[in-house]
Amino acid sequence: MSAPSDRARVKRYNHIAAYDAQTIHSILDAMPLCHVGYVFNGSPYVTPTLQWRDGDRIFWHGSSASRMLESAETQDVCLTVSLYDGLVMARSAYNYNINHRSVMVFGKPEKLEDPAEKEAQLRNFVNKTIPGQWERLRPVLPKELKATTVLSMQLTEASAKLRAGHTDDEDDADFPVWTGVIPVRYEIGTPEANPGNLPGVEMPADALKFRIG
Amino acid sequence: MSAPSDRARVKRYNHIAAYDAQTIHSILDAMPLCHVGYVFNGSPYVTPTLQWRDGDRIFWHGSSASRMLESAETQDVCLTVSLYDGLVMARSAYNYNINHRSVMVFGKPEKLEDPAEKEAQLRNFVNKTIPGQWERLRPVLPKELKATTVLSMQLTEASAKLRAGHTDDEDDADFPVWTGVIPVRYEIGTPEANPGNLPGVEMPADALKFRIG
Repeated sequence: MSAPSDRARVKRYNHIAAYDAQTIHSILDAMPLCHVGYVFNGSPYVTPTLQWRDGDRIFWHGSSASRMLESAETQDVCLTVSLYDGLVMARSAYNYNINHRSVMVFGKPEKLEDPAEKEAQLRNFVNKTIPGQWERLRPVLPKELKATTVLSMQLTEASAKLRAGHTDDEDDADFPVWTGVIPVRYEIGTPEANPGNLPGVEMPADALKFRIG
Repeated sequence: MSAPSDRARVKRYNHIAAYDAQTIHSILDAMPLCHVGYVFNGSPYVTPTLQWRDGDRIFWHGSSASRMLESAETQDVCLTVSLYDGLVMARSAYNYNINHRSVMVFGKPEKLEDPAEKEAQLRNFVNKTIPGQWERLRPVLPKELKATTVLSMQLTEASAKLRAGHTDDEDDADFPVWTGVIPVRYEIGTPEANPGNLPGVEMPADALKFRIG
């Protein structure tokens, strides 16, 4: 994965910047929620949507009628994934920070045109949330595939930023205030059954494998 | 709060769109992490950062050397806040969804120039995470205020999207598959003390009031 040469960011904090595939993949896999930035009529838009990864490609989908997807097809986008891992209590407001992981991916998306490939990636999307769930669902219809746009980008121009651990404001080490980290993580609750379920249908045990973070 | 007239979005799902201040404020207050979209050299960028609200204004800050903030000062931005509230297991892949809350704010940011106002808002930022924490910290220095840019927008062009509850795919109600919701929420861990703390400094009880979500 190459560094985003002319798009390098100036950062205030002593973060770790990473461009290796393993770090970038692990962050993308941890958080399906992403924010896609695109330009429409000269103005920026940031739309939350769900992403998934297959090898060195990232995917997202939506209605074929979506303005976001239509715009994204024809121009550069920036797709960002972030996790809030903790509040870093420092000795000064200036050093207040959060522990976090984030990835930015730049590129021009490609639209999946082959229905078989589209279906394979939607299966991938569903089964990454709950293993085997695609096979349990009412099979996808051709008209649904048609109404769904799947976009994809290769993870060539991507970078990660990470921060972990306590404050590094040693300059203020003599100031008598407590410092520490308040950890934040995603808690997955017990699955709640839809009262509209048919009698006798049972929750797949795989539903308990759903994780975020 | 007015609807974003020419920026209305086409949505696939049966979400609730809301433009009332109470809904928008409650989502912004629940999630400090935001994604700011801006255009730089014609390309979109989406940068994760922290936001806070004061009345009908939203604020965010960063290094005065930050390209994002420099770009944002002179042009439109889109600031988006999103929360992942749960996975909605439907009867078909087409109806797979997540429960979520999100807000999009559009506008041209204003830079806070008055050091007193800047300081008041940074105090606001810190004390919204942990009540009274600003007063416990090493006081802010003039050079730190100078090195910090605080941007602000009025919440005039803002909208919220929300989804809650079970799948609404009644068309497939006869298909024998389990449906339900897997709730997701932010869990705040026990604060962890920095081993570099001075002997005798104690964690402020207010640290236990930190919440997200």
